[in-house]
Amino acid sequence: MNLVPSERPWQDIYQILIDTVLPRPIAWVSTLGLDGERNLAPFSFFMPVTARPMTLAFAPMRRGHTPEVKKDTLRNIEASGEFVVNVVTRRHADAAHHSAHRLPIDADEFERAGVSAAPSIDVAPPRVAESPVSFECVAHRIVDLGDEAGSGHLVIGRVVRVHLADELLDDRGRVVRGRLEPVGLVGADDYLGLDGLFELVRHD
Amino acid sequence: MNLVPSERPWQDIYQILIDTVLPRPIAWVSTLGLDGERNLAPFSFFMPVTARPMTLAFAPMRRGHTPEVKKDTLRNIEASGEFVVNVVTRRHADAAHHSAHRLPIDADEFERAGVSAAPSIDVAPPRVAESPVSFECVAHRIVDLGDEAGSGHLVIGRVVRVHLADELLDDRGRVVRGRLEPVGLVGADDYLGLDGLFELVRHD
Repeated sequence: MNLVPSERPWQDIYQILIDTVLPRPIAWVSTLGLDGERNLAPFSFFMPVTARPMTLAFAPMRRGHTPEVKKDTLRNIEASGEFVVNVVTRRHADAAHHSAHRLPIDADEFERAGVSAAPSIDVAPPRVAESPVSFECVAHRIVDLGDEAGSGHLVIGRVVRVHLADELLDDRGRVVRGRLEPVGLVGADDYLGLDGLFELVRHD
Repeated sequence: MNLVPSERPWQDIYQILIDTVLPRPIAWVSTLGLDGERNLAPFSFFMPVTARPMTLAFAPMRRGHTPEVKKDTLRNIEASGEFVVNVVTRRHADAAHHSAHRLPIDADEFERAGVSAAPSIDVAPPRVAESPVSFECVAHRIVDLGDEAGSGHLVIGRVVRVHLADELLDDRGRVVRGRLEPVGLVGADDYLGLDGLFELVRHD
């Protein structure tokens, strides 16, 4: 079968995207609000872009029609130009999954997720101490895709500092995949790790 | 450990990106050259962006310094504004893997990959008949990240037509993950499917 996306409800199109483009790596993005509150949210519309400059992209989607749905993460990046991408791996997938819940903007999301904040070196937002890979980023380009429900932005970040946990690395300084234990998202609560599928429960 | 990307060779930075951002879904992108030659190449820097408009992004990277390294795919999209993203799944991962080789620009890459071309409806480049999910796209935005080795472009495509193989769908028209059999890239020759890791051999 075939269909024209603009003729369908955006929710159906969103469903097709998340049902067919997978497995997706997960960026756990930390930002600071204007009042210093710490925001932490996972995004699975995420990819590497270039090595020089080192860039990454992720897409915070707008889900509804009300002003509040402009994601805190995006608002903070627009205001400060800074964020940290912490790569979600098996060992803290559960905490990241939990932090996908919407919270009031003034909640401390590190605390809520049960993770610690480690200071960054070149940007103000802290990184997730438990994450073995973190990329300190400055916003390089923010592409606005529209303001309808189902639309959003694509954020391209230039990585100014890379953090790699020492225990990931072999003698030559190369990341060992089995030590990283990567996970990808393949459903609302379903993940794919090196050993296959597993499910995480949202605890409210 | 931590490092500043601009102080390292781009090859080392590329290695960090592909070793830490994973598993990555794979876009097999078909385009037409000015002379009508059919190009088909896989890209694992790939993600969904928004549902309305329905958009996807992928990043063709520039690897070397010579003019030829501007990928045929990018050159064709810049010239025509049209491309098809065919999602790589388990059943044709081997063919996609094989098509990652550089070919002279006038080679017919459908033939080389051993797949058939099916006509698209709204764009000129054909889709891969064997792929159960194809997105006909028009270029929405092409972001130039620089012209050094290790740099490249981020291509945002607006999806004008979605093709879904009937056998993927359940009674309600929803994609069944076990029928799709998604695969992600986790190494140069290593893939992650729903059953775990597998390796594909490049046959020259």
